[in-house]
Amino acid sequence: MIAIDAMGGDFAPRSVVQGALQAARKNIKVGLYGDQVQLFSLLYEFDLNWEKLPIEVVHCSQVVEMTDIASKGILKKKDSSLVRALTDLSQGAVQAVVSAGNSGAVLVGSVLLVGRIAGIERPAIGHFIPNAQGHQTFCIDLGANTDCRPEQLVQFAIMGNVYTKMLQHITSPRIGLLSNGHESCKGSHLVKETFALLESYPELNFIGNVEPIDLFNGRIDVLVSDGFSGNIMLKTAEGMHKAILESIEQAYQGSIWRSLLGFFNQKIFSSLHDQFDNNRLGGALLLGVNAPVIVAHGNANAWAIENAIKFAYKKTKTNFINRFIPPVIEHLKNHTLIVSEMNAKNLHSTIKFDRSV
Amino acid sequence: MIAIDAMGGDFAPRSVVQGALQAARKNIKVGLYGDQVQLFSLLYEFDLNWEKLPIEVVHCSQVVEMTDIASKGILKKKDSSLVRALTDLSQGAVQAVVSAGNSGAVLVGSVLLVGRIAGIERPAIGHFIPNAQGHQTFCIDLGANTDCRPEQLVQFAIMGNVYTKMLQHITSPRIGLLSNGHESCKGSHLVKETFALLESYPELNFIGNVEPIDLFNGRIDVLVSDGFSGNIMLKTAEGMHKAILESIEQAYQGSIWRSLLGFFNQKIFSSLHDQFDNNRLGGALLLGVNAPVIVAHGNANAWAIENAIKFAYKKTKTNFINRFIPPVIEHLKNHTLIVSEMNAKNLHSTIKFDRSV
Repeated sequence: MIAIDAMGGDFAPRSVVQGALQAARKNIKVGLYGDQVQLFSLLYEFDLNWEKLPIEVVHCSQVVEMTDIASKGILKKKDSSLVRALTDLSQGAVQAVVSAGNSGAVLVGSVLLVGRIAGIERPAIGHFIPNAQGHQTFCIDLGANTDCRPEQLVQFAIMGNVYTKMLQHITSPRIGLLSNGHESCKGSHLVKETFALLESYPELNFIGNVEPIDLFNGRIDVLVSDGFSGNIMLKTAEGMHKAILESIEQAYQGSIWRSLLGFFNQKIFSSLHDQFDNNRLGGALLLGVNAPVIVAHGNANAWAIENAIKFAYKKTKTNFINRFIPPVIEHLKNHTLIVSEMNAKNLHSTIKFDRSV
Repeated sequence: MIAIDAMGGDFAPRSVVQGALQAARKNIKVGLYGDQVQLFSLLYEFDLNWEKLPIEVVHCSQVVEMTDIASKGILKKKDSSLVRALTDLSQGAVQAVVSAGNSGAVLVGSVLLVGRIAGIERPAIGHFIPNAQGHQTFCIDLGANTDCRPEQLVQFAIMGNVYTKMLQHITSPRIGLLSNGHESCKGSHLVKETFALLESYPELNFIGNVEPIDLFNGRIDVLVSDGFSGNIMLKTAEGMHKAILESIEQAYQGSIWRSLLGFFNQKIFSSLHDQFDNNRLGGALLLGVNAPVIVAHGNANAWAIENAIKFAYKKTKTNFINRFIPPVIEHLKNHTLIVSEMNAKNLHSTIKFDRSV
């Protein structure tokens, strides 16, 4: 079963319930965690026969709000939909968690309740971003960690390297470091220190600093950044995409001739819309924790939630996290310099998870 | 005369000379600083009658390269086009400097040679970014300072406030702080500390954290950020814009029907192209120094250089910097908390510049 934090997100619980229903209709077993009065009422509103679908409602009396400080939300709201879902994941009662709620709280909760991969200090949000030519760049971190240390960025690079190798079957993924210029002298202190660390790391195919344009031209396979810059990049790309499509829409208004022209262009524009639509991606994996946690957009609509659940289902069905963990640990064992002492100890203890759906 | 760093930029000196020629044809007096052999040769290549235009060539034997460390470039290359141009600006021999070269070096050179506005610790790159509806958001810093302190971001906010008031005649510009979420709990340490400072500052109309989407929806008049995040945002917007236009171009290939459709759409797409074309902006002011220094894009083409020179000319003709400095100093005098002790002393000394073209 996939546990859904039904109370998390700008349009929760309505669009979350709707998205979960859509996924359940495709035979994915979902658990809706949240206020049962609201959840039952929405389920009946959307589908009078919902009880025939593989849906379970798990009542939780609390909600971690978007405005809650992450750690406080997790520590104080033991009966919140998020904490309950993550606890069930840690105990093996569910196989994955999907949340569109407070991403800081999802991070803290995952670390505290589900646990990190040995050697990884901070889990990070990673996802493929496609360009117009069909090339995909795996971007990590897209928003989990607003302040990072250079060693943590190298750990992101290692996770991105393993992830891309596994899913894109690239022998040696080209890794770029997000900066304000291609030159090695460019970047913040963080970027400069990370650059030096990555350069001294022969197992990674580090090609140097890259700029946001390289997300679109297929020059790299993995883009490493702290979560603040990565998030600004992601949200700017989305904002620009939305702004241009609105401009196009406006341009085809005002005269019959223009409206007619717009009509003929519809198919082209709708494919353009799909190409960069973040709802199609649905959600992203929180890489670095011991079980699949999927972070969906705060403003996810029902379709996005459905896609995030499908994504979670795929990851559990392929037993992805269990195959992802060993090569990451192997990497880190060889390069304990970037692992803090406390974490280094854990590297040699064996971790085993069995999470089939 | 406007001094042009003819050796700075990815396409220098060729596109810089070409852009300067175009500006000179519009009766703007320009000084081309750089290697005279190359400059004369290019001038004759572009226009056999260039000597009739208001162009002066100032020979300099050195170049601050893009790969030079900023401070070393400035301190060691005394006869570089950039250092000579900035020195002439500081001595009043020219009225403004335009450079598409190493922006870090332009910053350091401006601070050392031209001097800062009293109370301002770090000059910043500020510019209006238009959205599709014609609203303009003044963004500061777009790339001068990769690492900042909260007090410096407040100083950027003050400069943005004065700039927007002067040029857009808004009584109380809405100021937003770039973050990874609207909630006050979101953001890096830098953002959180800056948020607290800005909130305690009643003279500024601070509306809180904003996301990149707010650049496109007209919700704010001034967007404050450190130069790293601001630069990532700017370059992502440009990259996405370019990627979408390429997608559109591709979509109209493949069949006669599509090509024909593309032909009818040309006018609409070209206006879309212009709307966000960074070459139209040309260059941005380095705010916080005592005379007009204009930073152009590293990859500026001739048209961009021409526009940057026109922009510089306009700023000198309207005596902009001299009108900009007093209200900034006045602001800072009232709020010495955000000014370091060393800078506070300078606040009370009078600074005078007379820079008419």
